[in-house]
Amino acid sequence: MATFPTRGDKKEIEEGSDFAPKFDADGLIPAMAIDAETREPLMLAYMNEESLKLTLEKGEAVYWSRSRQEIWHKGATSGHVQKIREIRTDCDQDALVLYVDQIGEGACHTGRSGCFYRRVDLPETQLSFTEEGRRFDPDAVYGKK
Amino acid sequence: MATFPTRGDKKEIEEGSDFAPKFDADGLIPAMAIDAETREPLMLAYMNEESLKLTLEKGEAVYWSRSRQEIWHKGATSGHVQKIREIRTDCDQDALVLYVDQIGEGACHTGRSGCFYRRVDLPETQLSFTEEGRRFDPDAVYGKK
Repeated sequence: MATFPTRGDKKEIEEGSDFAPKFDADGLIPAMAIDAETREPLMLAYMNEESLKLTLEKGEAVYWSRSRQEIWHKGATSGHVQKIREIRTDCDQDALVLYVDQIGEGACHTGRSGCFYRRVDLPETQLSFTEEGRRFDPDAVYGKK
Repeated sequence: MATFPTRGDKKEIEEGSDFAPKFDADGLIPAMAIDAETREPLMLAYMNEESLKLTLEKGEAVYWSRSRQEIWHKGATSGHVQKIREIRTDCDQDALVLYVDQIGEGACHTGRSGCFYRRVDLPETQLSFTEEGRRFDPDAVYGKK
């Protein structure tokens, strides 16, 4: 796989047209997946260089699982792949937004459309559900855990 | 300031109503700010426990600046504060989404409405601008750097 360009100076990074992503000390860059149709945030996960390249090659979101320490092709088990519609990077190119077509019933392993299904109620800092029910049975889709 | 509840087991974290955010090894949690009106992603930054508490107290986004290693009340210099409309957390409570009313012309220090103003063109991995011009003069707003 090709490597990404060397990161230039601040002006090149912020105003240039070279995609030169910055990976942190752990070799990771955060990626927020957003439903391309509904514009709802689906999940926030991380990519290392290899998974980002795989994402670009496959046109589907491939993350790095920090808990399992392995490449994580989202949907490989569940079928709930995320087809890449568009990728954005930010000013200093150390974060990504993925606009995706979420295949299947949802992105979240809890059975919901996305992972951000609870709102923090101020000022009590208690959570309220914004998506109470489940759209699919996680045990059936991911296997009993 | 009060502390957040101790994190319980997986079921409590995912299905409970206690807000028990998880901070990473550096004491940080990523927060994606999204414009509450346009639903456009504005910026991705980080909070430590203190800045998250300040955010909840003030009702305005307060981050932790990793580059300056200090509390960063967004807009304190520029006036471009982010009024918190709603905060969401994800299934394992290690990421936040902030729906904000972005005060002023924009969130990004480059003079744009948000930081994700470039699209990665596949498969060349060149960047195209989705917001070409500037909405404000960063030198005037932030001071010459």
